[in-house]
Amino acid sequence: MSNQIFVFDTTLRDGTQGEGISLSAEDKFKIALRLNALGVHYIEGGNPGSNSKDIEFFQRVKQHNFNAKIVAFGSTRRKHSVAEHDASLNRIVDSGVRVSSLVGKAWDFHVTTALQTTLEENLAMVFDSISYLKQKGLEVSFDAEHFFDGYKHNPEYAIAVLEKAQEAGADWLVMCDTNGGTLPGEIFEIVSNVKSRMKTPLGIHTHNDCELAAANTLAAVQAGAVQVQGTINGYGERCGNANLCSIIPNLQLKLNYRCISDNQLQQLTSVARYVSEIANVNMPVNQPYVGTAAFAHKGGIHVSAILKDPKTYEHIEPELVGNKQRVLVSELAGQSNLLFKAQELHLDIDQDPEKTKLAIERVKQLEHQGYQFEGADASLELLLRQEFGELEEIFTLDSFKILVEKNANHKVASEAIVKLNMHGNTVYMAAEGNGPVNALDNALRKALEQFYPEIRNMHLSDYKVRVINEKDATASKVRVLIESSDANTKWSTIGVSENVIEASWDALVDSMRYALIGKQPLEPANSQPPTRLGLVNH
Amino acid sequence: MSNQIFVFDTTLRDGTQGEGISLSAEDKFKIALRLNALGVHYIEGGNPGSNSKDIEFFQRVKQHNFNAKIVAFGSTRRKHSVAEHDASLNRIVDSGVRVSSLVGKAWDFHVTTALQTTLEENLAMVFDSISYLKQKGLEVSFDAEHFFDGYKHNPEYAIAVLEKAQEAGADWLVMCDTNGGTLPGEIFEIVSNVKSRMKTPLGIHTHNDCELAAANTLAAVQAGAVQVQGTINGYGERCGNANLCSIIPNLQLKLNYRCISDNQLQQLTSVARYVSEIANVNMPVNQPYVGTAAFAHKGGIHVSAILKDPKTYEHIEPELVGNKQRVLVSELAGQSNLLFKAQELHLDIDQDPEKTKLAIERVKQLEHQGYQFEGADASLELLLRQEFGELEEIFTLDSFKILVEKNANHKVASEAIVKLNMHGNTVYMAAEGNGPVNALDNALRKALEQFYPEIRNMHLSDYKVRVINEKDATASKVRVLIESSDANTKWSTIGVSENVIEASWDALVDSMRYALIGKQPLEPANSQPPTRLGLVNH
Repeated sequence: MSNQIFVFDTTLRDGTQGEGISLSAEDKFKIALRLNALGVHYIEGGNPGSNSKDIEFFQRVKQHNFNAKIVAFGSTRRKHSVAEHDASLNRIVDSGVRVSSLVGKAWDFHVTTALQTTLEENLAMVFDSISYLKQKGLEVSFDAEHFFDGYKHNPEYAIAVLEKAQEAGADWLVMCDTNGGTLPGEIFEIVSNVKSRMKTPLGIHTHNDCELAAANTLAAVQAGAVQVQGTINGYGERCGNANLCSIIPNLQLKLNYRCISDNQLQQLTSVARYVSEIANVNMPVNQPYVGTAAFAHKGGIHVSAILKDPKTYEHIEPELVGNKQRVLVSELAGQSNLLFKAQELHLDIDQDPEKTKLAIERVKQLEHQGYQFEGADASLELLLRQEFGELEEIFTLDSFKILVEKNANHKVASEAIVKLNMHGNTVYMAAEGNGPVNALDNALRKALEQFYPEIRNMHLSDYKVRVINEKDATASKVRVLIESSDANTKWSTIGVSENVIEASWDALVDSMRYALIGKQPLEPANSQPPTRLGLVNH
Repeated sequence: MSNQIFVFDTTLRDGTQGEGISLSAEDKFKIALRLNALGVHYIEGGNPGSNSKDIEFFQRVKQHNFNAKIVAFGSTRRKHSVAEHDASLNRIVDSGVRVSSLVGKAWDFHVTTALQTTLEENLAMVFDSISYLKQKGLEVSFDAEHFFDGYKHNPEYAIAVLEKAQEAGADWLVMCDTNGGTLPGEIFEIVSNVKSRMKTPLGIHTHNDCELAAANTLAAVQAGAVQVQGTINGYGERCGNANLCSIIPNLQLKLNYRCISDNQLQQLTSVARYVSEIANVNMPVNQPYVGTAAFAHKGGIHVSAILKDPKTYEHIEPELVGNKQRVLVSELAGQSNLLFKAQELHLDIDQDPEKTKLAIERVKQLEHQGYQFEGADASLELLLRQEFGELEEIFTLDSFKILVEKNANHKVASEAIVKLNMHGNTVYMAAEGNGPVNALDNALRKALEQFYPEIRNMHLSDYKVRVINEKDATASKVRVLIESSDANTKWSTIGVSENVIEASWDALVDSMRYALIGKQPLEPANSQPPTRLGLVNH
């Protein structure tokens, strides 16, 4: 018997039902690429019948070659209608996917109360809808909604729904604990029973309302389910869906099932953090396996024991899931990672242990101030290059000023003035913008353009602000992350300050310094003539 | 057979090992009072041998009459020493508590690697330490550290440790899954075995490294454990301890065990939120049972079903744990969400279908512009009250100006000037701040204070910025979410604009308008005298 478990990711569909989770079509596409690399078998993209964002997503994925199967979600046909004419089913067909996830009712109470139809009609809805999609050549994964609640109230009917789906040719029968109220013992017993009665492979879809979604998924697999549904970081309605970031390592490292390759498993932490960044949701530090505190040790006894042998207080090697050990007494987040990074940049760390020590000190200091280089590779690279004396400064700041003004019934006006020193010249430049940071960006860019026209090829592609210390919100420290791109690459930079403008300035400057690494300045004479607020030669 | 389960809370001891959790003696005392009211049976306060904070805590609790038993934590005596002379054991005795929680090693590998002593000496350490504390009249709960890892490697030795503790007179044998790596099936099997061999009542202490701490605790109870250890909100080292906020309702509402009274259970949500406030840690919105999203509904199909019967998508009645149902308004949802919200506010929607239609139109329009009301209840309430003509405006804006200035090697300076019209007066006010938004907040607050001194009681507790359209980051639309609090409540407001300052202003203004709903303005004469940039009477 194979020990392969199929991973069905629904971050982009059920995950977006979570409070505060909102993903653009572009966000969804970016996440899909990472999920694909992670090796999940199914990526449920959304409901092509529900909104234009999902329609756009399904258009975009067609132009890319995914290993994972892209799945479109929908419901069984409306009551007393014909599947062939059902707009929502036809939108699944039209979306061009090869796999459909189709939800139908399995709890008699829901059929009569929510759908307000008969138990027979619901069976017909399940049968007709699956038959229609199968006839159109789709792989169909049937989601039996509220299967466990249904089974507990009326087992015959819940089973009849699965039988009807099987009869219609469903490729998967997925048992859903939609309300998240079922316990692991019940799950094990019910799935075992279903397993003994069905030929079609079984899937499990749980929710975390009792903090048992991971345990319930394991129980179902141990009872014979071979497809697990869940989301990255457990995003989803109410208390969330089953968290694939816990379920995959539990199955693979603890129970010897096969989900993804060992190399892919090592991407898990980075995928979890990436998705939380894209969703702009803080990841709980204590998230199992992938959180920054998952292998962090604070207690003195624990720390001295892990120095003797990490196995004393770590249930797995953190590297297996791409995470790392941290000791909280020193603020240092992984000096080996830092050394690794320096090596990647061909900085000669072995030759210069003194500089290496200083660089580590500097990173520690900044992390203590609230910097987090996890999402700001470019700033980290600049810092390392600087510490190793390899970086030439493009300019120094003399001053900047920003004025924001609003009058009743007028739009806000934002202006920025920067005064820089570049290659021995004072550059004085002003610009407007759609906001203070945009004005600053425009002024800085205009100033740099005179020496580095290539700066026009880059632009800022994302801008995020997060409060670090929440005690007193608008007066506490903020962390600004800026993502920039040019035709070929993307890079991220960071700034931290009590002042959002200063933090933005630092991240902006890093972004442009990074873009210009190794670039030679033009002679001022070769560039545009100075404007009124332009270049002043000394 | 009784179905009573004893709840042992270790928020104040093991909980403080969590990253970012730091509690003063005063914090600990306040939390202990709430835990006592909640009805937990044991409150582990800390380690009186470890620091002055814990010593102070044990001093303070003596002066108060607790129903719960206050517990002091410590380790077995040092190797090759005498319990009577062990400083740490004597500090437990001196702390004046009636109950001690004593940790000892149960994993042979730990005895040899971490303690670096013999298996026999460890047994003697367990026996001597418990005997000494029993002799001093204390109730002793023995924590068998790494019991499950120990049992899996050397079951005879793990059992021998428990037998030694029982022989010394321990009142409780607590089996700890210290590294959090054990699965529910293993827990059930091992606890069942131990149960068949021991007379002393058993306890269970789990950690959440596999996201299974709640499930593991249930499995142990089902195998015969009658004491459950955990923390409020699952705080604790690495991925945290077992979360009592999930375990108590699971045991009591799902498995018919008795932990606390029904009335006490209704305090659970408020205790969870109180502890998160005191610890200054954001509670995940999706926390099971007690999170603000635990009974929040976003999907349109879900919402229309819960309007028919909440049981369709809720596994328990939220009121049983002191939580409540919420309906999130979002683009995924239909208008039923909005109607539900209006009903909550007692707005007479049936009487005025025209206004209802306009309100729905307005929300749709704003959502199209990038507003998202699911995270901004207060802004939605203001909008609905306004549409139904129930809201009096506090002020109108004439203008604001913000100046941000930075000179090389100086900190950024931020100033704001606001000019408002309030109750027929022009109010002109300036303030500094740690950033432009903080300056604006300060100026607005100073202006409002003259008429509404109660504005001093509220403060902003979180501030989030998110770029909506990422195409051109600093020039694209941003969404600002502000969370505010006063002594009793929290509310969230939203602003959307191309300009982060304007979006922040809108969210700030909503926050203060919400705080002042139903409040009457002072006569200006009753307030402070006008300052130079203060109140100008017309």
